[in-house]
Amino acid sequence: MANNTLKPWLHIAADSDFSIYNLPFGIFSSLKNSHRVGTAIGDKIIDLMELASNGAFRDLIADDAVLQQPYLNEFIALGKKTTSEVRNRVQQWLVEEASPLQKNPQYFINQSECILHLPVRVGDYTDFYSSIEHATNVGKMFRDPDNALLPNWRHLPVAYHGRASSIVVSGTNVRRPSGQTNPNGSSPVFAPTKRLDFELEMGFIIGQKTTLGKPVEIDQAEEHIFGMVLFNDWSARDIQKWEYVPLGPFLSKNFASSISPWVVTMEALEPFKTHGPKQEPEVLPYLQHSGKKNYDINLEVILKTTNGDENMISQTNFKYMYWNMAQQLAHHTVNGCNVNVGDVMASGTISGSTPASYGSMLELSWAGSNPLEMKDGSKRTFIEDEDTVIMRGHAKKNNMRVGFGEVKGKILPAV
Amino acid sequence: MANNTLKPWLHIAADSDFSIYNLPFGIFSSLKNSHRVGTAIGDKIIDLMELASNGAFRDLIADDAVLQQPYLNEFIALGKKTTSEVRNRVQQWLVEEASPLQKNPQYFINQSECILHLPVRVGDYTDFYSSIEHATNVGKMFRDPDNALLPNWRHLPVAYHGRASSIVVSGTNVRRPSGQTNPNGSSPVFAPTKRLDFELEMGFIIGQKTTLGKPVEIDQAEEHIFGMVLFNDWSARDIQKWEYVPLGPFLSKNFASSISPWVVTMEALEPFKTHGPKQEPEVLPYLQHSGKKNYDINLEVILKTTNGDENMISQTNFKYMYWNMAQQLAHHTVNGCNVNVGDVMASGTISGSTPASYGSMLELSWAGSNPLEMKDGSKRTFIEDEDTVIMRGHAKKNNMRVGFGEVKGKILPAV
Repeated sequence: MANNTLKPWLHIAADSDFSIYNLPFGIFSSLKNSHRVGTAIGDKIIDLMELASNGAFRDLIADDAVLQQPYLNEFIALGKKTTSEVRNRVQQWLVEEASPLQKNPQYFINQSECILHLPVRVGDYTDFYSSIEHATNVGKMFRDPDNALLPNWRHLPVAYHGRASSIVVSGTNVRRPSGQTNPNGSSPVFAPTKRLDFELEMGFIIGQKTTLGKPVEIDQAEEHIFGMVLFNDWSARDIQKWEYVPLGPFLSKNFASSISPWVVTMEALEPFKTHGPKQEPEVLPYLQHSGKKNYDINLEVILKTTNGDENMISQTNFKYMYWNMAQQLAHHTVNGCNVNVGDVMASGTISGSTPASYGSMLELSWAGSNPLEMKDGSKRTFIEDEDTVIMRGHAKKNNMRVGFGEVKGKILPAV
Repeated sequence: MANNTLKPWLHIAADSDFSIYNLPFGIFSSLKNSHRVGTAIGDKIIDLMELASNGAFRDLIADDAVLQQPYLNEFIALGKKTTSEVRNRVQQWLVEEASPLQKNPQYFINQSECILHLPVRVGDYTDFYSSIEHATNVGKMFRDPDNALLPNWRHLPVAYHGRASSIVVSGTNVRRPSGQTNPNGSSPVFAPTKRLDFELEMGFIIGQKTTLGKPVEIDQAEEHIFGMVLFNDWSARDIQKWEYVPLGPFLSKNFASSISPWVVTMEALEPFKTHGPKQEPEVLPYLQHSGKKNYDINLEVILKTTNGDENMISQTNFKYMYWNMAQQLAHHTVNGCNVNVGDVMASGTISGSTPASYGSMLELSWAGSNPLEMKDGSKRTFIEDEDTVIMRGHAKKNNMRVGFGEVKGKILPAV
C-alpha cells in the first residue's frame, strides 16, 4: 500500500522502523507461548496466531497451525495473495476505530518481553557478489589495480553457494573461528583467525518454489521474492586467502552468518523502488529488465566496543547495487536450478563509492593498512574479541519509514 | 559384522550388491503403501515399517512413525546404536530358521514392484576435491602442467558448498542446462552447454548432528557418518570455465546431482577399510589420523547409448582418495561449522592413475581432444542428449560382497 496518510490509533514513535507502513513478519516466543508468527508495530508485536484463533483470518487461512510453527516457511508458502491480505487486514485494523485489534489489547505483546527467532528454515543459501564498488575494491587490493574487475563481472551476477546450517538470528554470539592460514607463504599454520571481518549485506527470501528444470523469467522474478532481511556474512580473511583458489570461499565463511529477525515484505518496500546503475556493456537478454528494480534503503554499520560506545563505521545504501534481485534470481535459475520457500539469497557486501560507505573492514581499513579510530581511542583493522557489530537499515520517503531493526552479533574469543 | 560365514535361508544371487552383509537403508513406496523405510536383500526389499508394526523393534524404537517418512532423517537421528541394532536383527533373522522374517513372506516386496526415492532430506551439501589424480589432471589441462596442484591442495581437503535442492535420486532424467559461456573470449553467449559432463563421486551422509562452534575431532569423525551413496555431480564445463573465478563453480554444477537410493552403512563397509596414499608433506595435527580410513570400493561408469549398448568408460576405486572422510569432516567443522543429520558430503571426482580410470569425460577425453569410441561407432568427448550415465560400485572380500546398486541419469535435450 503506497498510501502515505495512514493514521493509526496506536502511538508509534516517528523514528520507529516498525511503522504502520511496514508490518514485517517474524517468529517470536514469550513466557506465555512458544514459537508463533507475529508482526511488529512500534515497540510491540501483534500475535497473529492469537488473532487467527479468534477467527480473524478464517476466510484466508484453512489451518491456523501455519501460524504456530518454529519458522515462517509454512505461512509464506500460503502465497503472496494470502500473506499480503493478512498484512493489509492488520494495517486496516490499526487505523479503524473499534477494530478487533483496538478492542483487544491482548493481541499486543511488548517486543522487550519476547524472544525473536530465526525467521525461516533455510533450505539453501546463496551469496552474490553484486556491488561493483566492493568487487572493484577487492580486485584492487588482491589482484590488478588497473583491471580490478574480472572479465565475467559485468556479464553475470557472480555468486556461490554458502552454508545454510550456520545462519543464526541477530543477537547470537559468534565464536572466533580457527583455521589454516599461510601468513608467510611457506607452510600453513593452524590458529584463530587474525582477520575477522563482517560483510554488510541484505538478503531476500524465496516465497514461491520452482520445479527443477524450469527457469524463473526475469519479469516473473518478483513473484518469487517474499521479503528481505539484513545479513551479516561474517568472514575470516586470512583463512579465505589460503583456501579459496580454485573452488571459492568455504571455512572462511561458513562458521556463521547473522540475519535480522523481521522479514520486511516486498509490498512494504514497493514505495522505495528506484533505478539501479546503468549496466555497461548491455547484458544478455535473460538478464534485461525494465522499470525500477533497485531499492533505496539506508544502511549503517556500528562497531560497539565493550564500554558500550557505538562507533558508526559505515553508511551506505542498497540502491548502489549493480545487479538487482530480479537479475540474481533469473540468473540463479536460468540453468534450471530450483528454489524453495525459505531459501536465502544475499547480495554480497554492499559498498558505496566513498571510503566511509564501504561494507567490510577489509575495505574500510584497506586490508589493514588504514586502522579506524574508535571513540575510546582504540584502533581497529579487523574485528576484535568482545566487539559487537550492529547493522541497521531503513527506507524513508515523505512520512513513510520502513525499517529492518537490526542484526547484531558479538565476537567471543576462540576456544 | 565382519563375520563372513553367514548363510541366509533366502536365495541371494552370488553377484548381488545386496547380500546379507550389506542391508542398506532406503525409502521406497509401492502400489500398496506410500513412503517408508526398507532394507534391500537380493532383489527384494524388506518392509521395516511392516516389521515394526508387528512389534519387531518395540524395545528399540519408541515411535514407529520414524519408519513411515518421506526421508530417512528421522530414522537416522535415532542414532547408530539403534540403527545398527535394527540392521543386526534383520541380518540374524535372515539366517535363523523359523525367524519372524522367514515365517512372514509378506515382509518382502520385489524391488521391481517398488519406487525408490531420494533417501535423505539434504540440509546442506558439500563437495570436496579430494582425488589427487583428478586435481592433477585438471591442473594440467587448465593451469600449469609443471605445477598442476595448487599450493594449498596437499595441506587441506579443498571443498565448496553445493546446492542441496537439486539433488535427485537415481533414475531422474536430467535436462541439459543452458547458460553463459564465453567460447571465443570476447563477449559471452547464452546457449545450451556444449560440454556436459558427469563426475564419478561417492557421498557420505551425516548421522549425528553437531552444535555450531564445536568442531568434530578427527578421531570422533566416524561416529558422525551414517553411510554412503554413489554420487554423480553433473557438470557443465563451458559454463564452469566462464563463471568460476573468483568464487567457485555455481550454475555449472547446481542444475542437478544424482545419488543412489540405498544408503550403505559404515558397519557394512567396515571389512573393506584400507590404508590411503601417504600424505606428503605431513598434515597439520587436526588432520592427522591413525589406522585405516580409506575404503576399497570398486567403481565403474557406463555410458548407455540410445540403442541400449552399455559402454564401460571408466573403472576405478575409492581407495585412491588422497583425503579420507574423517579428514574431510574434521576439516569442515574445525572452524565451528555445524552439520545436521542428512547432510551430504561428496568426495569430488574419483580418478585413478591410468586414463581408463578417470572419473569424468573432461579427463577421459582430455578436454575433448581424445574422443571415446562407443560400441555403435559413435564418438564422445562429452555427454550427448539421450545418453544415460550409469555408475556402479561394490566392495568385495572373500565371499562378502557389499554393493551400492547404481546411480543413473539420462540427459534430455535443452528446452
